[in-house]
Formats: sequence, structure tokens, C-alpha cells
Amino acid sequence: MTGNTAADLSLVDAYWRAANYLSAGQIYLLDNPLLTEPLTPAHIKPRLLGHWGTTPGLNFVYAHLNRVIRARGRAVLFVTGPGHGGPALLANTWLEGSYSENYPDVPRDGDGMRALFRQFSFPGGVPSHVAPEVPGSIHEGGELGYSLAHAFGAAFDNPDLLVACVVGDGEAETGPLAASWHGNKFLDPAHDGAVLPILHLNGYKIANPTLLARIPHEELDALLRGYGYAPSYVEGDDPAAMHARMAEALDGVVDDIARIREAARAGSAERPRWPMIVLRSPKGWTGPSEVDGLPVEGTWRSHQVPLSGVRDNPEHLRLLERWLRSYRPEELFDERGRPRPELLDLAPRGDLRMGASPHANGGLLLRALRMPGTAPYAVEVAKHGTTNSEPTRALGRMLRDVMALNAEERNFRLFGPDETASNRLDAVYEVTGKQWQAQRLPTDEHLEAGGRVVEVLSEHLCQGFLEGYLLSGRHGLFNCYEAFTHIVDSMFNQHAKWLKVHRRLAWRRPVASLNYLLSSHVWRQDHNGFSHQDPGFIDHVMNKKAEVVRVYLPADTNTLLSVADHCLRSRDYVNVVVAGKNLTPDWLGPEEAALHCARGAGIWDWAGTAEDEPDVVLACAGDAPTMEVMAAAALLREHLPELDVRVVNVVDLMRLQPDTEHPHGMTDREFDALFTPDKPVIFAYHGYPWLIHRLTYRRANHHNIHVRGYKEEGTTTTPFDMLVLNDMDRYRLVVDVVDRVPALGVRAAGLRQLMTDQRARHHTHIREHGEDLPEIREWAWPY
Amino acid sequence: MTGNTAADLSLVDAYWRAANYLSAGQIYLLDNPLLTEPLTPAHIKPRLLGHWGTTPGLNFVYAHLNRVIRARGRAVLFVTGPGHGGPALLANTWLEGSYSENYPDVPRDGDGMRALFRQFSFPGGVPSHVAPEVPGSIHEGGELGYSLAHAFGAAFDNPDLLVACVVGDGEAETGPLAASWHGNKFLDPAHDGAVLPILHLNGYKIANPTLLARIPHEELDALLRGYGYAPSYVEGDDPAAMHARMAEALDGVVDDIARIREAARAGSAERPRWPMIVLRSPKGWTGPSEVDGLPVEGTWRSHQVPLSGVRDNPEHLRLLERWLRSYRPEELFDERGRPRPELLDLAPRGDLRMGASPHANGGLLLRALRMPGTAPYAVEVAKHGTTNSEPTRALGRMLRDVMALNAEERNFRLFGPDETASNRLDAVYEVTGKQWQAQRLPTDEHLEAGGRVVEVLSEHLCQGFLEGYLLSGRHGLFNCYEAFTHIVDSMFNQHAKWLKVHRRLAWRRPVASLNYLLSSHVWRQDHNGFSHQDPGFIDHVMNKKAEVVRVYLPADTNTLLSVADHCLRSRDYVNVVVAGKNLTPDWLGPEEAALHCARGAGIWDWAGTAEDEPDVVLACAGDAPTMEVMAAAALLREHLPELDVRVVNVVDLMRLQPDTEHPHGMTDREFDALFTPDKPVIFAYHGYPWLIHRLTYRRANHHNIHVRGYKEEGTTTTPFDMLVLNDMDRYRLVVDVVDRVPALGVRAAGLRQLMTDQRARHHTHIREHGEDLPEIREWAWPY
Repeated sequence: MTGNTAADLSLVDAYWRAANYLSAGQIYLLDNPLLTEPLTPAHIKPRLLGHWGTTPGLNFVYAHLNRVIRARGRAVLFVTGPGHGGPALLANTWLEGSYSENYPDVPRDGDGMRALFRQFSFPGGVPSHVAPEVPGSIHEGGELGYSLAHAFGAAFDNPDLLVACVVGDGEAETGPLAASWHGNKFLDPAHDGAVLPILHLNGYKIANPTLLARIPHEELDALLRGYGYAPSYVEGDDPAAMHARMAEALDGVVDDIARIREAARAGSAERPRWPMIVLRSPKGWTGPSEVDGLPVEGTWRSHQVPLSGVRDNPEHLRLLERWLRSYRPEELFDERGRPRPELLDLAPRGDLRMGASPHANGGLLLRALRMPGTAPYAVEVAKHGTTNSEPTRALGRMLRDVMALNAEERNFRLFGPDETASNRLDAVYEVTGKQWQAQRLPTDEHLEAGGRVVEVLSEHLCQGFLEGYLLSGRHGLFNCYEAFTHIVDSMFNQHAKWLKVHRRLAWRRPVASLNYLLSSHVWRQDHNGFSHQDPGFIDHVMNKKAEVVRVYLPADTNTLLSVADHCLRSRDYVNVVVAGKNLTPDWLGPEEAALHCARGAGIWDWAGTAEDEPDVVLACAGDAPTMEVMAAAALLREHLPELDVRVVNVVDLMRLQPDTEHPHGMTDREFDALFTPDKPVIFAYHGYPWLIHRLTYRRANHHNIHVRGYKEEGTTTTPFDMLVLNDMDRYRLVVDVVDRVPALGVRAAGLRQLMTDQRARHHTHIREHGEDLPEIREWAWPY
Repeated sequence: MTGNTAADLSLVDAYWRAANYLSAGQIYLLDNPLLTEPLTPAHIKPRLLGHWGTTPGLNFVYAHLNRVIRARGRAVLFVTGPGHGGPALLANTWLEGSYSENYPDVPRDGDGMRALFRQFSFPGGVPSHVAPEVPGSIHEGGELGYSLAHAFGAAFDNPDLLVACVVGDGEAETGPLAASWHGNKFLDPAHDGAVLPILHLNGYKIANPTLLARIPHEELDALLRGYGYAPSYVEGDDPAAMHARMAEALDGVVDDIARIREAARAGSAERPRWPMIVLRSPKGWTGPSEVDGLPVEGTWRSHQVPLSGVRDNPEHLRLLERWLRSYRPEELFDERGRPRPELLDLAPRGDLRMGASPHANGGLLLRALRMPGTAPYAVEVAKHGTTNSEPTRALGRMLRDVMALNAEERNFRLFGPDETASNRLDAVYEVTGKQWQAQRLPTDEHLEAGGRVVEVLSEHLCQGFLEGYLLSGRHGLFNCYEAFTHIVDSMFNQHAKWLKVHRRLAWRRPVASLNYLLSSHVWRQDHNGFSHQDPGFIDHVMNKKAEVVRVYLPADTNTLLSVADHCLRSRDYVNVVVAGKNLTPDWLGPEEAALHCARGAGIWDWAGTAEDEPDVVLACAGDAPTMEVMAAAALLREHLPELDVRVVNVVDLMRLQPDTEHPHGMTDREFDALFTPDKPVIFAYHGYPWLIHRLTYRRANHHNIHVRGYKEEGTTTTPFDMLVLNDMDRYRLVVDVVDRVPALGVRAAGLRQLMTDQRARHHTHIREHGEDLPEIREWAWPY
């Protein structure tokens, strides 16, 4: 049965018919799953929801891959780009048995078939798309564009894996997918697995033809060769002929991949021309060819539900029954609804079933990283704030050693849009290189075929690669310019939604968190300017489920190290870490930092003047705000020593929320202990100020919290001028204190004037001389 | 001087040298702009900021285009993909005079040159990127990926325009750019202008080589042909040879475009193979070839500032002077710093100067749309809420007539990722088609070469096309699934930032607003599910400047029509309109709707029971929340008739903010008049609930506002079950009222139980039968 004979292919056809039958059944049937009686309206679902159009093509590919897996005994991970075709993956995993293993309530028999049909797109049932609930999937099938990037991510460091990725021709119009083809310039045939793109041209998206289906063959062929592939074409609509073509193409492709691997592993440095398949088949293949006098099969009309009036229109009901019976279910299932033994024999065994692939339930394969701890990279702090260091540079050293310690395991990678060096993480190049399969020149640095840093100027690819890498059981970090993380807002959404559902499925095992390092942030855009200033990714992240998202704003090197150490050990979260790359005062020593990060927020009593109850709280979150708050505290200490000032620093932003809203949230009692129930709070925050209000509006003292942050003012200017433009500079913060603490008297009025004058003096100097005054660059901290 | 002789090209070379000199001068010089004295550290800027690497290539292209424009007298719009090369565009517009016309303080003489140099990347000066401040630009040069989409957008309906778009090889790695090449399947040579992509392969991005520069020539050529272009290659580093090649290539390209236009306008229906240019030149061309023993010209080391230690390192200072003098400024500028007459002669005249193109200051060309008003599409409402209609379907009819009324002007387009029909706007196809240049089949519907609806399954392309179309002086609307608007979050950011700056530049004239219609929204994802549920685009939009952003949540057909009519007439905003496509009760008649929309928020006294001071306020924003609030009000009227209920509906979300925060904001007095200063408010909101808190936290009654909204619970289920899952259903709202209005007594406790039972009854029915109870689908409104 592992061959390619007519008998073998007839079995593949039977398997395909079974999957098609099960797919159509899911869309339509509440009952009578085996059609043991004539179809009546009572057997039909009240709401017909789902996407038939792409489904038979997916079933076709799945059945053929089964034959190949059986023949070769090699693991294949299936990535379903046209994820709207949920019925296909549900049908196939049920047929092969992997579905029922995870969902015993849906056994592989007639009762199970009824449950399988009923639950689909049914309230309390399963979604219409390929989603975390579907065994064998690492790819949410809703938003389009990311399948191929996920496939490459899963293939990295899985040298024996073949990732078969069906790319829909609708999805192929998206930007992220169009860029993803170039993933082959990174994939290393020696250390990585193979990705087999299967471009499925069924010709239509929702109501329109697709671009790639409507350009001449020569143009399509040139495009795919230009992307660096060797395409094989499987085109037609006659099932028997198509089975023969597909089997031949797949056998050829798998042979080619074996040859490429062999050559690379024997030392060839040539970039391979990876094979791919173009499958051109009718949309809604084998479905109703015509309904109500209009063509359906092979047109956009079969995108969702080809027959929509089945409950009320007897003709539609008749067509549905004829369609379902055309698959000859009685040949496919026994009287108890079990797939017949010869069908079962086509399916691979055990973990080789694509629905049972451990690579698609990465937690099964996940091994904790060997971590070096923070000590080797920490800076000693004899006196608070008197030395400076570059936080991300220290982190780079730590990441270097994470790389080194896990080099053998090959389960940690760094991704970035060519910003790894710019974000000062370049110590990693001491132990690894940047993965690169394209041409190299003698002047190049750090490029290597098997490098563990992936740099491509596409945030979409970085994110997609990393998601695929994590969900298949590995670890990683995405470093990105803060503003441009918004490019992947929607990808983050889908991943966060995936994690929410994944966490609720007992059979899905925890995976490593998705770690973002946002550097080159809003306050330090020296070479760039307004277009590079946007701290709103945090706001975006906050809309997702509290159990999934974490945001950290370390103020210095040691806090960044502590936070990063924590994030790299965590599971099933999205961790957003915002940290600067520029010289920053070292506020906390290593032990202080660890304790502070464990608490998430705390009073820096050494920085304030309040012994006990303060007159005012200066709060800060983020490196630039912390620096300004510390300077404001120093100014107040000097000029208004009688004022009791408390300094509070927040590292873990989620701490601000009530404990009822987020697992990290503080109780009201804890919050009041830090921020007081009734004293003015001046809060300097890294991002858009209203986020702090959103997090704290339920607190007793909320009306007293006055927030400074970024308010969309900026250009190419000096670091201090950015603070002035957004009213977050130290002088302004002192004025805020003076304006909000009652009864400070005449000295305060004098201080107010002094601060206003200082502010103006700095502003004028900057405009005249183009740089900050030395006293800003080398402020002396009195701590 | 319009020819292609050696003398002509020597002049082009001089022009190029002048631009290169002016570019380097901007990066380095505070003073001594003409190098009339030896360079000293005092002449050097304290902070060296900017990007030299891409700049000489941009200058090269600009100079050559000048020659062609002079020779042909045809308008060219220049789109600078590598917008980091701000110095190039500033230099060229200064040279041609368009800069000084807009900025008289920077005249075209020695003083002006000093000002030009000093202001660049200087506090209070101009940004380092191509930004709105740069004459001739419609494209922000910070975030990469959108240049080619902007170019296509500008070319639509500009039949005589040539849009030359330089695409950097860094940018070419991004997804949006990779997808944009396919823009040529939409561009109609009969009615649209031409786009000339100039792929600039200078080999490097920040610290890495670029993919397209490191694949074999055959592969690159296949890729570009696969995208449908006929590439010409201009490759080398010897200026004289490169001038000859570029001139020849450009002449050929312009001839080809003329032939394509002629053929199409004579009736040819063949899709043309548009020409393009590949320019392969060294990064940092003509800059220092080696610094500190390391190669710089032609490597990534020239990405930003090739000589970084100029103030302190005498060798760097010497190299800088030698570099600047290599352009022979004394041959290019007279002793007063004015460009020599022969240089001036190369520049085109008047509006043909690319910096003076009216297409880049679209407000100059903008003509108001002829609008049909709302009356023809409005629904009559004899009794509130007793008829139903599909809001977006009515809007589709209105858009159809906007299309028709402006058909001759050809200045209105609709863009969407194949969702125009799905969002029920398909009435537009009665008067126009979907623009499509690729193959057509007999079964296709509404495809036409010159159609005014652009559908491509890429939100990035829809947004980019529309931005280019608007900034060049036309009107449009982008309709999109609500959840997937996040795909363009970052593009929205850049456009909103552009508008903020544009509004502050006196010489930039108002352009039409960017209008989003977000339909198929979170509450109605029948065929899809959790992955399609995200109402957070509103939250994202709110972070941008209040003067630029507007958000509307019309509750029914007539309010949607009124809002849309307003948005299509507005200028310089981003308008976000969220509206459903499903059958929705018609709450307001046409006049009521117009008045309500003009007010933005108001009391629906006919829906409540309060004559005067209410006991409780039921507030709503959005169609689904409005329906539930109306049902809750009806339930309260029936079961607790003695309770004085006020119903408030909010259409214009910005009204909730204080008037100090947003131009549409209410005063506290207005707010209190609607929401009371002290009564409980139950607010049912379309999106994530905390946004309402963010908007209202400064109001006196904020602590009494209890918000229901979407909290990331959902799947493929019924409309009512979605409301139940997120605690926004009518029964839950009644319970909220009962729980928050004090002293309602025993009847309220009974009502609470009844509501809880009803809720459970519905939930059970839905889980059992897969559909909502008929009483939900056909609720009888008592108004």
C-alpha cells in the first residue's frame, strides 16, 4: 500500500472521498450521519456555516501525504494556510484516529461521526477554522498570510522534519505571505528541516478571482523560480488523473528533498533550489456543479456553503443528498460508522499521523533552556545611579551565553528585522552567526549557513518564524524597534488568541512564551524621529486576556537582566519587555534588582525623602521616566528638603491593575501602601499616559494620579528635548509637584519659577547648539 | 540640454555632484557651507544624524528624471521608498527652487545653504527622513514597505502622470512591498497613469546584506518578470558609464510607457508588461571608500554617517573635507552660493519640478465630491425599531450614487480585501466594476479594466493604494473586516502622523479624510469566529492626535447614512466608522438621525421611561449594544414600570472625552446633562469596555459608570450567544441595573431571578438547537 500503483491510488481516492464526505457532513448534518435513511430537513443544521470551497483540495493533499508518510516512514507536519477549511482537518484527524484520542467524546464510529458533524460551527462546539482545538495544527486558520512563515519557523532546527504548507491563492495575495517565499534564503539544509510549499490555485478568494490563478503560466513559473523554487505542477479536475499526477509529483519532491539534505550534510555549501508543488484544482471540487442554474463548482460561489437553502428548498435538499451519496459512504464506512480497514491502513501509524505530530503540540518536545543566571552580566552598584551602562548590551552578553549553553540542543533563536546590532545585542555574534543561505562576500561579517540569529527586514517574517519555532517546542526572542512592533499587531492578536485557547485544552502542553524586546524606543530616536515614535504596542497588548499577557518596563541594566531571565523561563505567555540601549544610570544592584523585579513595583526609599507617610509620590515606569523622576526627586531634595517625597518604580506594569483583573494585579491594600490612599501622585510613564489611568481607575486614589507620558510630540531632536516636548522632563515634574501639593508656600513659588526658567534655558540651548547641555548628559546623582 | 549627449550627461553629473554635496553638507555642517575656508571642528554639528548610504543613489535617480522631464515635458511624481535619504530630497528641492518657495527662510543662496545644512536633523529643524515637510512628497520615509502601494494609488485616475518610485532593497524584504509589485494587475493604462518602479540594489540594509542583492541575476530577473515587469538593468559604479546607462534606460522606459498608453487608449485590452529599472550601485556611492582601515563605500558601514568622529578625530575631519571637495563645489555654486545657471537649466520648470508637483500636495487638486445626500437611501421610520434594514446595504446604494455622480471626475474609489460584496456594498457594481487587468473568464462578474472598486486580499495594499490616492487629491473609502483592520495598524499610525504634521504646514492644502468602514464586526462573525473578533482598532486609533482622529458607531441605517455623508465631505481626518451588515432595527427616522448624528450623542427619550431625572441611565454605542440596551429598557418598562430609565445613545465616540482633550469633546456640563452627575450608568459598548473608562475617567460621575463590552470571549456561535458569552445581553443588563439601583425592593429581586432564568433558558436552547430562539430574532419593540 505504500506504492504508486492504480490500486494504491484507488485507495487514496477512497480516503479522499471519505474525507470529503465527512467534511460536507460537518457543514450540513445534525443527524443521519451515515445516510442510512433519506435526508429530511430535520437532519439539517439550522445555521449552515463553514467554508467548503478550499476543503476538497486540502483533503486531496492530506490523503496524498498520508501515502507518502506510509511509504517513507518520515515525519510530516501539515500547515493549513487556507485554515477556513476547518472541516478538512477535522475530517482527516478523525479518520486517522488522532482526533478521537484527544476527544474521546468523538469516537471513530457512527456516534462519533454524529458528534463530529454536530459540533462543527455549532454553539458550544468547535470553530469553523483550523484552530488550537484541531490536533496537528500550529497555525490559526482565520487571518491569512502567515502559514509559510510558520512553516519555516517549525522547520528550523528540526533536521528530519518535512513541513508541508498549503498556501491558498487568496492568502498568497497578502504581503506577509508574499515575503515568506524568501524564507528559503534562511533555511539551512544541513541543520534545518524542509519546507514544502503547496500553492493551491483554486482560483477564487471570497467573491473574486485570485491574482496568481489569472496570470499566464510562464509568469507564474518565473515568479516561483524567482523566489528560488523548482515548481512541479499538478493541474486538472479529473480525480483519477489528478491522483496519478499528485503521487508522481510528491514522490519526486520527496526524493529531491532527500538529495538536497544528503548533499548539504555531506558538506555542499550551495544554496539548494527547493522543490514546491502548484496544485491547480477547482474550487469546491466534487461539490454541486450547478445550483439554481448558476455554476458553483469551480467558481467563487462554492467559497462557503454551496447549497444554502437546504432546510426550506426541497431541490437543494435533493442536491445535497445526491452530492453526499456521490462519495459512496457505504463503501467507506462499515455499518457501525467505522472507516473500513483498508482506509485505516492508508493512515500512518502513531506519531507519524499528522494529527498526532508532537511538533504540532510543541510542549511535548519542549526542554527548558539551560540558563546562565544574571550574575555574570550584572553591574555592581556601590552607590545608586552613579555608574552608567547600556542595558541591552548587557542583555546581549546574557543571550550570547544562552545561545552557547544550548548550542547542542539547538532550541533557542533570536529574530530581528536587522536590528540586533543596532539594539546592541551583538555579543551573540561571538558564539553564533546570522543565518544566511544567499551569496556571501568577503567583506561580510557574521553570516553563516547555520547561524542562530535570523535577520530579515520584515517584522512579519520575524514574528511568523518565531511563532512557528515556539509552537513546535523551542524558545526564542524577537527584538524590534518599539514603534514598528505595530506592524505585527494583528499577528500578536492571533497568537494571543491561540494561547488563550491552547491553555484551556488539557491535551495541549505548555510552550515557551513569545518574548518581545522592544528597544530603540520612543524616547531615543536620535537618527530617526516622529515616524519612529510610538509606544502603543503596550496598549494593544493590554486588550488581550490577562492570563496571557505580561508587560515589563525595566529601568536599568540589572532589572532588565532579571526580567529577561524570568521571561525566558516562562511558559504560555506573551512577554513584552521595553528597554533602552543607551547609557542609563545603574539604579539597583543585582540583588536589589532581583527583589524589585520579583515584587514588580516598589518604593525606592533611598531615592525619596519620606520616612513614613509622604506628601507626594513620584512614580515611574520605564527607563526615561525613571531618570526624570530621579532627577526631579533630587531637585526637590535640594530645593524643598522639608517635602516628604516617595519614589515608586514600576517594572511589571500589570501590577497596577486590581488583582481581580490580572493575576499579577495588586490588592487595593497593596496599591494604597505604595501610592497612598490620598496623596498626589505624579506618574511619569514610558508610553501614552491614559494607559495608567485605564489600569488604575478603580483605585481609591485614582483622582490624585497625574500622568505624564508620550503625547505624540516629537521629531529628530535631542533626548532631553523629547522630554520637554512631551512635558515629562524633570523640571516639569517638579512643577507638577509644586502645583499639586497644597500649602507649600512661598519657597515653592520660587522653585516653580526656577524650574520654569531652567526648562526654558535648556530648550533655548538645544535649539541654538543642537545638543543637550552637559549637565543633562552628566547629571550627578546624589544617592 | 534635453538630449542624451556626453555634454548633457556631464551636466547631469554636475547636478548629481551638487546634490551629493548638499546632502553630505546637511549631515555634517553647521557652517562654512561653501568650504570657503578650511574645515574646522567648529563647522561640524555636535550630533551627526542621518543616513548617507541611500542618498547618492536617490540623487542619481532624481537628476536623471530631471533630464527626462525637461526632454519630454511630462509630469513625474517622485516617491522615495528609501525615505531615510531625507538629505537627497531636501537637496534636490532646494536645487530646483521648490524648497525655497515653500520655505522663504531657506533661500537658494549661500545663506540658504547654511540654513539648509543647519536645520537638518537639528532640534527645531527638519526630520532626517522624507516627511510631510519635504515638498514633492506623499510618502513618509520612516517605516518601510509602502512606497510602491502609494505610487499605484497616486497613479490611479491620473492618466498623464508618471509615478517614479524608488524601492530600496531593504524595503523590498517587507511583506507589503513584496505584495505591491502585483499592483500592475490593477493599473489600467487607458485611464490610469504609469508607475515606474526603480529597484535600488545598493546591497545592504542596516547591518546586513539584502536578499534581492544576493540572489543570482537569473533569479532576480525571473522574479521581476514573474511579477509582470520588463526590467532594465543599470549596474556599476563608474559615474560616467552609469550616467550613460541610466539615460538610455530611462529613455527606453519612457518610450515603452508611451507605447503602452497609446495602445490601450486605442483600444487594446492586453495587459501590458510595464517596464521597470533595476539600479545596482554602491551603498554610500562617492563617499569615503575606507575609514579606519575598514571598507565603507559599498558596504553597510555607510548606512548612516560614514565618518562619525569628525569633531574629535583630525583624520576624520580631513577625510570629510576631502570627500566634500571631491564634488568640486566651486564649479557648482557661484561665490554667493547660488547654483550656477547651467545647473539651474537642468531642472524642470514650474509645476514640472518634482518638488512642486501638485499631485504631491493633493489639496491643490482636490475637488469636493458631488454628493447625493442621504434622503434617497434613508428608511422611513413610522414607529421606532419596528422595521429592519441592513445598514451597509443602504450605504452601498449611497456609494453607488457617489460613484455615479463623480464618474466623469473619476475621483472616488472604494478599496477592500475582497469584502465589498460580503459587507453588502455590492450596489456599487450597478455603476462600476472591480478593476482587474489580469485574465478574465466568462463566468466572472463585475470585473473590468477601468473599474473603480479595487479588491485585493491585502489590507496593506488597500490602505496603501487609498493613502496614495488621497494624498494626491482624491477621495475614497476602505471597507474591511473589523478585526483585520489591525493588519494596517502601523500604516494608520504613519498616515495619522503625516496628517498631524501636514495640518501644521501652511503650504500643504487640506486633503480628503481617510475613511474606514469596519463591518463584519466582532458581534457578527457567523461563518468565522474567535480569530475574527477584535474591536481594538478603535483603541489603537485613540492614541493619535485628537485633531486627526474621529470614531463613529452608528446604531442603524439612517445614522450610518448620516455619518457616511459627513465623513465623505470632511478633510484631513481619519474617520473610523463601525457598522453592521445584518438586519438591524431602524431606530431613528432620517431627520432624527441627522440631528442625533450632528449632536453625536443624545437622550432617546421615547425609549426610556424617565421624564426628568432618571434613576438609572442605560447608555449604548454601536449597533449590537444599542439593540441590547433597547431590549433591556423594554424589559424594565414591562417589569419595573416605576423605575425612571433614561436611554442615551452615542454615535460619535469622541463626544465622551472632555472638550479640553478633543475638539468633539463635551463639557462637563453637557456630559452631566446626559449621564447625570450621580446616577448609575450601565454602558453597553461595542468594543473593549475599558476604552469607555479611559474616555470618561475625568467625569464627576465616572465611578458610577459600569461598562459592558467585548472581553475576548467568543467562537463560532449564534449572535445572541456572543452577547451572553461577553455579559452584554439584555438580561444581564437588566441584572446590572437591578444590582446598581439602590432600594428597588422585592420586585427587583424577582426580576433579577427572572432575567437569570431567561438567560439560562436561551443559553440552553442555543447549545441544544444551534440557533437563537425566535423571540430573539423577532423581538417586538414597544416604541
